[in-house]
Amino acid sequence: MAMQAAFAASMFPQLAQRRGSDRAVVVAPPAPVRVAMRSGGAAAAAAAARGVRCRASLIEPDGGRLVELVVPEEGGRREAARREAAALAHRVRLGRVETEWLHVLSEGWASPLRGFMREAEFLQALHFNAIRGGDGAMVNMSVPIVLPLGDAQRRAIEASGARRVALVDAADRPLAVLSDIEIYKHNKEERIARTWGTTAPGLPYVDEAITNAGDWLIGGDLEVIEPIKYNDGLDQYRLSPAQLREEFARRNADAVFAFQLRNPVHNGHALLMTDTRKRLLEMGYKNPVLLLHPLGGFTKADDVPLSWRMKQHEKVLEEGVLNPESTVVAIFPSPMHYAGPTEVQWHAKARINAGANFYIVGRDPAGMGHPTEKRDLYDADHGKKVLSMAPGLEKLNILPFKVAAYDTKQKKMDFFDPSRKDDFLFISGTKMRTLAKNCQSPPDGFMCPGGWKVLVEYYDSLTPSADSSKLREAVAA
Amino acid sequence: MAMQAAFAASMFPQLAQRRGSDRAVVVAPPAPVRVAMRSGGAAAAAAAARGVRCRASLIEPDGGRLVELVVPEEGGRREAARREAAALAHRVRLGRVETEWLHVLSEGWASPLRGFMREAEFLQALHFNAIRGGDGAMVNMSVPIVLPLGDAQRRAIEASGARRVALVDAADRPLAVLSDIEIYKHNKEERIARTWGTTAPGLPYVDEAITNAGDWLIGGDLEVIEPIKYNDGLDQYRLSPAQLREEFARRNADAVFAFQLRNPVHNGHALLMTDTRKRLLEMGYKNPVLLLHPLGGFTKADDVPLSWRMKQHEKVLEEGVLNPESTVVAIFPSPMHYAGPTEVQWHAKARINAGANFYIVGRDPAGMGHPTEKRDLYDADHGKKVLSMAPGLEKLNILPFKVAAYDTKQKKMDFFDPSRKDDFLFISGTKMRTLAKNCQSPPDGFMCPGGWKVLVEYYDSLTPSADSSKLREAVAA
Repeated sequence: MAMQAAFAASMFPQLAQRRGSDRAVVVAPPAPVRVAMRSGGAAAAAAAARGVRCRASLIEPDGGRLVELVVPEEGGRREAARREAAALAHRVRLGRVETEWLHVLSEGWASPLRGFMREAEFLQALHFNAIRGGDGAMVNMSVPIVLPLGDAQRRAIEASGARRVALVDAADRPLAVLSDIEIYKHNKEERIARTWGTTAPGLPYVDEAITNAGDWLIGGDLEVIEPIKYNDGLDQYRLSPAQLREEFARRNADAVFAFQLRNPVHNGHALLMTDTRKRLLEMGYKNPVLLLHPLGGFTKADDVPLSWRMKQHEKVLEEGVLNPESTVVAIFPSPMHYAGPTEVQWHAKARINAGANFYIVGRDPAGMGHPTEKRDLYDADHGKKVLSMAPGLEKLNILPFKVAAYDTKQKKMDFFDPSRKDDFLFISGTKMRTLAKNCQSPPDGFMCPGGWKVLVEYYDSLTPSADSSKLREAVAA
Repeated sequence: MAMQAAFAASMFPQLAQRRGSDRAVVVAPPAPVRVAMRSGGAAAAAAAARGVRCRASLIEPDGGRLVELVVPEEGGRREAARREAAALAHRVRLGRVETEWLHVLSEGWASPLRGFMREAEFLQALHFNAIRGGDGAMVNMSVPIVLPLGDAQRRAIEASGARRVALVDAADRPLAVLSDIEIYKHNKEERIARTWGTTAPGLPYVDEAITNAGDWLIGGDLEVIEPIKYNDGLDQYRLSPAQLREEFARRNADAVFAFQLRNPVHNGHALLMTDTRKRLLEMGYKNPVLLLHPLGGFTKADDVPLSWRMKQHEKVLEEGVLNPESTVVAIFPSPMHYAGPTEVQWHAKARINAGANFYIVGRDPAGMGHPTEKRDLYDADHGKKVLSMAPGLEKLNILPFKVAAYDTKQKKMDFFDPSRKDDFLFISGTKMRTLAKNCQSPPDGFMCPGGWKVLVEYYDSLTPSADSSKLREAVAA
């Protein structure tokens, strides 16, 4: 148990600052710092002793600096912003996905964006997957981050000549002020076609956030009144890019490699992450740190919900499948588009802003089955190809996934060896889910027992009559 | 008539080299050179006297040099290439649109492309509207220039391990050799969605060149056996980028402004072009030359065919609506996508390669009505917005169209004046076609009488029972 607690603390370093949390694993000495100093070598240790943080080695955020849009706490400024927002004539109500985007923007994941996109940014995202910054340099930006608006509200705002509107939650509480606004047409068909490469009905994000959304978009500069919280017991894992950079600096990381996921971690994933660290050490890095970064926003109904995935990830670290000393686990607050090669760029770009200079890209990243045809929506290799050529991502090192499969001879997950291909068993996500649903066990060595148990428990928690609304995640309060 | 011949010569300078042509207007002294020297000023005249051509002021082609892919005539190399092509085991037959693309590629309009796109180029065009060159710089490339291949032929080529294939015309005559080939999937839905921003049925280019095309694409490097000719009486107007650059240099142009069109020229267009030249002179240019550049490849069935448009353009210059001294008319050999903001980038990029450093962009460039909904497919302003932000086009000066309309008070086309908006009449393309079809006259001053007569003749030539195949253009022989 002491072992597990230490793992938990170094994997979730933020927990050390949250001793009042009700999570059982939070019993943590400030181990990560010590570990980092040890593995950071003599120079790093000396720097740490002087209280100097080695941030120099972290990759620069897009646009040169991290754009944080939360109003500072000092001098009652948040209260003033809240009062101003409450007094504004126009209030745009945010749904779940829009609130997740507000969260994303507020912390600078989309730096250098300063708010919901105006039309020039929207058009550049759609056509070029990149936006030209003030200095003329292109930064990657492949998915539109936009706020829909209904026609009646559009007319009211335009008639009033207002330049600022309040953004409010479902209970009409002000979350932010959007200023210097611009309202423009929301051509849904064109947006969907250019983002997904299809207009077939049944795309999860489209059904959730576009089809019934307004026919206009409103862009502008954001002032977010206070940090977005969800109060679902997981906020402690929602580290901002600045907090992650702080943590990587604290550990004296000289390379940060990010692994985006929205599924349970099996031993094939773990092998890949471990192997990546080994390769980075061979390249001469002294302290490569893994950012294990599950996506925390909207996901489709048949994905495993975030809370269960977080439990599963904890087990993977507790049981030693990944090394907690060189791993930081945090939640990436973005909603999921399932837009394949377009979206994987967003996933990579956001991690640059959090300090990652290496990005592991898998087979068919952000892909899914075609909603109406019997095939995958995207070519499985396009994600890594597009990512490796994307404008604005030149400074990021792309690490393509090696294919791992279950080696029936060695009874463990290993990199696929085509010279003895009959020894390998490929266990798809669908197969994995089916096994867990039926309370069956996967082959030994496919996933750590504790992690598998979490999955079985999750499927067990779904009664046969459960409708899809039971799968929904917590919404920001 | 002498006047007209001089106009024709300076407007179609290439005619001076083609005295054997059967076109009535070809009776030309080498006037354009004289004219150019006069208007080029003393320095230019001195340079011309020394035989030096002032090419320095022309914009650099994309990628630094014009990529021409036609096998040189010297040393029997074309005959050798033809023999080699005829002996190759695999022959891919080109349709009309593919032949037009072969023409485009062969002359360097798509520089630095060296042939039909391989997958890396295709993906970059679809996702970024731009391709990274060997030097790391982005060049604009917004429409895929690809060659479809059927499954049976794909299997045969792959089974043989061939690295080179012959490209042949409808009569099986070799046109080119494609080498170092790469075959990859033709995901039509994704290509269409990302290029047009819709997958609605009825897009003209899709119906013509994609729907029934092969499920694979074959890319590679091209050697084109000889210049592509159509033998339709218009080849003399098909100047390559190198020939256009030669002509601009000969005229000592210090600015070249391109006007892309696929419709008859009315006096509003002419006003715009004349006004542009005036503005460029005010900016300090001494000899701005207009490239009046009608699109010559595939167009939709209800557009006016190329041969009639060329007759109409001739009249516009003969009747003095445009100044032939500062105008070069030539045919742009590309097929038309009707892909709005995506395609306008291609239209602009290709003209850079031909030496244009200014590009006039209109309302809704390359746009059309939505094929299944009662609205325009694209926002009328998106074309110019996207063009002004497009990667790889930074060096091009974009000149947005001023809106011209028929001023009923002055009885002429003039720039729209919102302060007396009721005086103006907007005559749409549909309205213009309807008038011409019904042998009615437009208001005086809308179009020069000779030009209008050509249009009426064209519609008169269509018998009521004429089916759309009668509208089809000549195909390259």
